[in-house]
Amino acid sequence: MSAKINIPKDHPRYRAMMIRENMIKGCENKVVAPAGLIAQGRGEAFDYLIGEKTEPFALDAIKAAACAFILAEHPVISVNGNVAQLVPDWLVKLSEVSGAPLEINLFYREPGREEAILKVLEKAGAKRVLGVSGRRETIKELSSDRRIVDPEGIYKADMVFVPLEDGDRTEALAAMGKRVVTVDLNPLSRTPNKAHVAIIDNITRALPLLAEYIISYKNKKREELEALYSSYSNRETLRKSLVFMAERLISLSREI
Amino acid sequence: MSAKINIPKDHPRYRAMMIRENMIKGCENKVVAPAGLIAQGRGEAFDYLIGEKTEPFALDAIKAAACAFILAEHPVISVNGNVAQLVPDWLVKLSEVSGAPLEINLFYREPGREEAILKVLEKAGAKRVLGVSGRRETIKELSSDRRIVDPEGIYKADMVFVPLEDGDRTEALAAMGKRVVTVDLNPLSRTPNKAHVAIIDNITRALPLLAEYIISYKNKKREELEALYSSYSNRETLRKSLVFMAERLISLSREI
Repeated sequence: MSAKINIPKDHPRYRAMMIRENMIKGCENKVVAPAGLIAQGRGEAFDYLIGEKTEPFALDAIKAAACAFILAEHPVISVNGNVAQLVPDWLVKLSEVSGAPLEINLFYREPGREEAILKVLEKAGAKRVLGVSGRRETIKELSSDRRIVDPEGIYKADMVFVPLEDGDRTEALAAMGKRVVTVDLNPLSRTPNKAHVAIIDNITRALPLLAEYIISYKNKKREELEALYSSYSNRETLRKSLVFMAERLISLSREI
Repeated sequence: MSAKINIPKDHPRYRAMMIRENMIKGCENKVVAPAGLIAQGRGEAFDYLIGEKTEPFALDAIKAAACAFILAEHPVISVNGNVAQLVPDWLVKLSEVSGAPLEINLFYREPGREEAILKVLEKAGAKRVLGVSGRRETIKELSSDRRIVDPEGIYKADMVFVPLEDGDRTEALAAMGKRVVTVDLNPLSRTPNKAHVAIIDNITRALPLLAEYIISYKNKKREELEALYSSYSNRETLRKSLVFMAERLISLSREI
C-alpha cells in the first residue's frame, strides 16, 4: 500500500508522513504489530500537541537518562517492534556509546517476528542481540509473554531503558528494584508515570540527543552524575509537559 | 493476533480496548487499511483528551448535522474502511432514518477492499450501496482515487456526510458547493476546519445520537431547522473543543 503514496518534500508534515509510511512498511514485514500502528497514531497526536519539537522538559529527562545509563552497572536497552522500525541505527549507536546490550522483548510473539526484528537490528550494524538465544528467565511480576527475559540482559540489569512500552511492564521492572527509563509521547499513560525517567518526546528526536549526552557526560565525575540524576523530578517533567500542551492548545484555538 | 488478548471487562479502558481489537480485526480482513490503524490511534489520543464523552460542543454540532441531513435534497453518507468497521449498524440506521444512501469512497483502493467493505455493510443490513456499481463520475478538484464518485451519490449530492476523512477531500467537496458534515476527534486537523459542521466526538458515540436527533427533528418546520442550522458556528465549536482539552490537561496535570 505504501508504494501508492507520493509525499511531496515540501509538504509541511513531510517528516511525520515519512515516518508513518515507514511504520506501515514495518507492519507488512512483521516487525511492527497491527496494535503497534495504533500506538504510533496515539504518539503522532501527542507529538503534534508538543509541536513536534524537543522541549525543555524532554531535555531535562534526556540528561537524567544519560546519567542513569552511565551510573548503571548493567544497563540494558529493551527493543520492541516499533522501536526497531523507527530508530534501528540509533539503537545500535546508543548501545555502542553506553555499553548497554540490546534485548528484543515483545508483547506480541508471533512466529517470525523476533527474527524479523533481529534482521532489522543486524542490518543496522548490531553485533550482539539478547533475547533471541533461547536462554530464558521469567519475571514473576508479569503474566504475558514479556515476562520471558534474557538472563544476561533484563534479568540481571540494574537499569532498563524501555522506550514505547506499556505500563504493566514498566511497573513490574520498577517493582524489581531496577531503574526504569522510558520514552513516551503521552504523559498521561501509565508508562511515564511508573518510570523513574520519562522522556516526553518523539523517539526519532530523543535517541540522537540521548546518545550525544551520554558521550559528553562520560567525562563527568560519578558524584556529579549522581547529583544531576537526583535533582531530576519525573513528576515535575510530566506536569510541565501537560501544561505545555494545554498552553499550545489555547494558543492554537486563537488561530482558528 | 487479536485472539491472544483477553481484556478483563472491569478494565477502566475496556471499551476503548475492544474498539482497538475490532479495528485490528478489520485490518486483517482488508476493511481497514494499515494507515487507518494509525489514524485510529490519533483519534484515540484526542478521545482521551476530551474524556471519552460527548461534550456540549459535540452535541451542538450533532444538532446542526441533523438539520443539514433533513434540509438536504440529496444527502449522501460517504463510507471508508474505518467507518465501516467501527459503526456498520449505525451507518445503516442513519441511512434509513435520513434517506441518505451509503456510498463507499476509498483513499486506498486495494483489490478486494471495496468488496470487503460492501460485505460488512450488507451484513449490517444495507440494502443498496453506491460507489460499487461501476458507474463513475470524476471530481476534478481531487487527484487521488477518491475523485471517482457515484453519479447517483456524491456527484449529485447537495450535502455530504464524510466522517473520518482527510482535509483535501473535505475542501474539494465544499469547493463544489456541497454542504459538508464530518466527524473527527482532532479539532486541529484540516478536515473539521474545512467542513461546515464538524462533530468533535468518537463516531461510535456520535452516530447513535445523530440518528436520534434526525428522528426527533423530522417533525420540526423547515424554517425552524434553517434557523437552528444558521445559529451554529463551526469555528466556535472547534475553539470550544480546544479550550476544553486544554482545561482537562491542566486539571489532569494536578493529579500527577
